[in-house]
Amino acid sequence: RAMQYSIREATSEDCKDIARMIMELASYEKMSDQVKITQEVLETDGFSNHPFFKCLIAEVPEEHKSKEGHSKVGYALYFYTYSTWKGRAVYMEDLYVMPEYRVAGKGLGCALMRRVAQEGKVAGCSQLNFALLDWNTGSRDFYVSQGCWDITDSLGYHFMRCEGSAFELLAQG
Amino acid sequence: RAMQYSIREATSEDCKDIARMIMELASYEKMSDQVKITQEVLETDGFSNHPFFKCLIAEVPEEHKSKEGHSKVGYALYFYTYSTWKGRAVYMEDLYVMPEYRVAGKGLGCALMRRVAQEGKVAGCSQLNFALLDWNTGSRDFYVSQGCWDITDSLGYHFMRCEGSAFELLAQG
Repeated sequence: RAMQYSIREATSEDCKDIARMIMELASYEKMSDQVKITQEVLETDGFSNHPFFKCLIAEVPEEHKSKEGHSKVGYALYFYTYSTWKGRAVYMEDLYVMPEYRVAGKGLGCALMRRVAQEGKVAGCSQLNFALLDWNTGSRDFYVSQGCWDITDSLGYHFMRCEGSAFELLAQG
Repeated sequence: RAMQYSIREATSEDCKDIARMIMELASYEKMSDQVKITQEVLETDGFSNHPFFKCLIAEVPEEHKSKEGHSKVGYALYFYTYSTWKGRAVYMEDLYVMPEYRVAGKGLGCALMRRVAQEGKVAGCSQLNFALLDWNTGSRDFYVSQGCWDITDSLGYHFMRCEGSAFELLAQG
């Protein structure tokens, strides 16, 4: 049967479910010990005067809610970035659909990702970027089928990070 | 002798020099055919009501201007991003200093990068991220000496991109 769902912009009231799903995604990526974010932080960072991100929610009707009673069953969190070669870009930080609502190669995940691309296009972006963990070959095949390509491999990009005490030290200048 | 310079926030009037230095950096990276950005686009994208980036300019006094007569000799272009694990982050898209103003391991490049980290810290960020081309081992050593580490290698991240006709197709939904 076709899955019934809607996709809409998140509001501050969704932050409890976003926080729950961020934790579910991190568990899937075997990284849940890395998550420092909370519902309260999401409310401040995403829904105050100067939001640091935007979020889309996939919702199913009450009669299709999950075993645990959730009707918010997927999300895409994104923000705008900038390429000094190509201008405005949209970066999809997270794309997640609860396992029992996944349909291979289509369905909610695909719809969420397309909606991120649409929002980006309306904002004048010419590209969508995101990251993938290298063991996640199943998702990789899906993304490649959508026309995405690996800039780490093909362009030889390496992404660097400075955080914790090194970041503090750098900022002391 | 110690290099005299100042670092300040860019204004719309700096876009001609930013565009020039973006092209110089792309030439150094052997990628100048990829640059589609212009002075006019930078003015719109960086200095209107909803800026897509922020920029710092390194400037030297008139008496130390370059052979070609430039006193704006370096820039760092950055924006804020969001990690669903760790919250607010700052992303340094470009860091560039004109060759005749480079001093190994310190000087303008280091000062620009520290200032980006400072701005990030003030904005509540806990990390600084950026990308590096894999043949650029000289810069890599500098960044590692500043406490940065390679998340592509160590965490197995791959960065994916969707652009051009694939992006258009995706956005059509």
